[in-house]
Amino acid sequence: MESSIGIVTPQRMHFAEPLALQNGSTLAGYDLMVETYGELNADRSNAVLVCHALNASHHVAGIAADNPKDVGWWDNMVGPGKPLDTDRFFVIGVNNLGSCFGSTGPMSLDEATGTPYGARFPVVTVEDWVNAQARVADVFGIHKFAAVMGGSLGGMQALAWSIMYPERVGHCLVIASTPKLSAQNIAFNEVARSAILSDPDFHGGDYYAHGVVPRRGLRVARMIGHITYLSDEDMATKFGRALRRAEALVDGVKDAGKGGGSAGASPQDDGYRFSFDVEFEVESYLRYQGDKFAEYFDANTYLLITRALDYFDPARTVGGDLARALAHTTAKYLIVSFTTDWRFAPARSREIVKALLDTRRTVSYAEIDAPHGHDAFLLTDSRYHNLVRAYYERIAREIGV
Amino acid sequence: MESSIGIVTPQRMHFAEPLALQNGSTLAGYDLMVETYGELNADRSNAVLVCHALNASHHVAGIAADNPKDVGWWDNMVGPGKPLDTDRFFVIGVNNLGSCFGSTGPMSLDEATGTPYGARFPVVTVEDWVNAQARVADVFGIHKFAAVMGGSLGGMQALAWSIMYPERVGHCLVIASTPKLSAQNIAFNEVARSAILSDPDFHGGDYYAHGVVPRRGLRVARMIGHITYLSDEDMATKFGRALRRAEALVDGVKDAGKGGGSAGASPQDDGYRFSFDVEFEVESYLRYQGDKFAEYFDANTYLLITRALDYFDPARTVGGDLARALAHTTAKYLIVSFTTDWRFAPARSREIVKALLDTRRTVSYAEIDAPHGHDAFLLTDSRYHNLVRAYYERIAREIGV
Repeated sequence: MESSIGIVTPQRMHFAEPLALQNGSTLAGYDLMVETYGELNADRSNAVLVCHALNASHHVAGIAADNPKDVGWWDNMVGPGKPLDTDRFFVIGVNNLGSCFGSTGPMSLDEATGTPYGARFPVVTVEDWVNAQARVADVFGIHKFAAVMGGSLGGMQALAWSIMYPERVGHCLVIASTPKLSAQNIAFNEVARSAILSDPDFHGGDYYAHGVVPRRGLRVARMIGHITYLSDEDMATKFGRALRRAEALVDGVKDAGKGGGSAGASPQDDGYRFSFDVEFEVESYLRYQGDKFAEYFDANTYLLITRALDYFDPARTVGGDLARALAHTTAKYLIVSFTTDWRFAPARSREIVKALLDTRRTVSYAEIDAPHGHDAFLLTDSRYHNLVRAYYERIAREIGV
Repeated sequence: MESSIGIVTPQRMHFAEPLALQNGSTLAGYDLMVETYGELNADRSNAVLVCHALNASHHVAGIAADNPKDVGWWDNMVGPGKPLDTDRFFVIGVNNLGSCFGSTGPMSLDEATGTPYGARFPVVTVEDWVNAQARVADVFGIHKFAAVMGGSLGGMQALAWSIMYPERVGHCLVIASTPKLSAQNIAFNEVARSAILSDPDFHGGDYYAHGVVPRRGLRVARMIGHITYLSDEDMATKFGRALRRAEALVDGVKDAGKGGGSAGASPQDDGYRFSFDVEFEVESYLRYQGDKFAEYFDANTYLLITRALDYFDPARTVGGDLARALAHTTAKYLIVSFTTDWRFAPARSREIVKALLDTRRTVSYAEIDAPHGHDAFLLTDSRYHNLVRAYYERIAREIGV
């Protein structure tokens, strides 16, 4: 694995001051895993916060010091000479509260009981994460971010930042996101959660004590998620109806779908096998993704993060009027969507754009013609990356870096 | 419950002659549940075969004699004065092999072992069903059907009939269907199957012997299915982001989504409850659908029928050329799709239309502007029903009934 940013090491930040949460409870003390890239300048004006989506973490870019195979999830976007250029900007990644990559979450020991929080970990929201991230900014002495940026659920955090801390956000980059989930979006989350909640190994969320994990539920949840991340067209191109043959099963599982050529590279089609085992390439791909995910992701975190997605709706407390929710923002916005994204379709991004225009904010909008569905925000695409690069060059000029 | 057709009673037909299946095996003897409506005329020219989709059965119309609440699944389409008018046509419904409504399937006793087939029941295909249905026609002395008709998977059977028994099909009505599943379609089936296969109560398909059913897996499978049956727009209209409140939970669960007014009828919004229990109306609806399904449907049948969907691809043995697969057909066709159906989108129906035109068949095509997604083919819609009515009037004139 390569990364222009080299080897990186996260830091664990402890926050002793209790954090009041949206659900009415208070988190006593907590830790957040934080990773940074580039240098904070003298007047602390070049900081960019990158917010992560469902299964990602603070490890945005570079190679993890403890695992040379672990390249950050947005390494193609963040680094020296990358669209978000760490030669100019100081970039911060924070693993959100409730996640399972070192920040305090359901797997963490609850000091009050001496056992993992499990099901007792509070249901946190996007707004709770933003409040926790604001304290990270305080530690670095950053009063105002040059930009807050994120894709998907990360975009929701960026949007919430601009609403909750208007004076602390110069630019807000909201990519492949939505102002709130649709009924269909919630439905997919609910099915994924049902798979976990009904797994006998879930034990009401306290499976740690039983020495098991609800692997079957997590696996199904991830498979469902994956269908919504890819476009129909992309699946057709990558897999089509190609059959998975025995030879391929031995040496090719890990590469399924990666190069987009597995359908063409498929060995000779020797007919159906009439079973419920893997028959089609797309089944092999989904099973592999599900199994891999169930190895490293925490089921309680999956529940928490999908619920945070469901609950996000900044216009909810102002009668559903998004323009009103955005009325006190001062950031400038870049909103980006992808044509084949059917999870958060371009129309959802345009809702944000319209609300911003209705309340007379400065907003740029781009709809990128890309075949890769929701996943496109994580992939290398020159039009997309050139756009983000140009936008950061504008920010760099504004703040003189 | 009401039905213009009145009370109906199915018949069990036993077939002693072995049936050779596509997977290479042979089913020794088997039973099929059959229900008929109307009268077969003297020259046996007015028979219409109605093929069922995933979770339906031989009980197409009327009220089941043994359950006054059990109205046939296409009762709005089939009956006296209905679009498929049983005053003129003799209509046959057959529960397919492998299903769980009385026809021989995984729950049936395998005479060779004295135990239920379970996992040993062969993986049957659309073509196997058509061959079995042809024997039902033989019993009735029907050489040629006036029409074979079906929606979704039922439409695949109708299409296969016109290819496999060209001389026995006058008209072929293929509604909300596709010539083959896409990678995304297969992916949804695979996730549903994974939920069942990984349920600890599945016991490799032989759960009957353990006195359990893989209810959790079936429930999740059905929830996934339901998302694909409804359109995004329809879900937004029916449920939106409306919260499910305690009062509603008590008295309204059964009606969720039925009238399309649950969002509007929702009690006062008193805020989020920050839990993984039912919070949104759409969650309540999905859970109810999943629970209800798990009560009555057999898990092995779910596996079999989704696999039959996956495998259907009549062009597969002729180099993927659907026009070539249809070259020897003699039926006239009516192909119908629905604008918001994203499971089998109009483009999939147009593939069939194009192939029929390419091979110079007679085909009528209608794309119905309907908001209800894939489910639209089962719902009452005047444009859709008038179209089918007009088409059957044409058939009636042709055969002089």
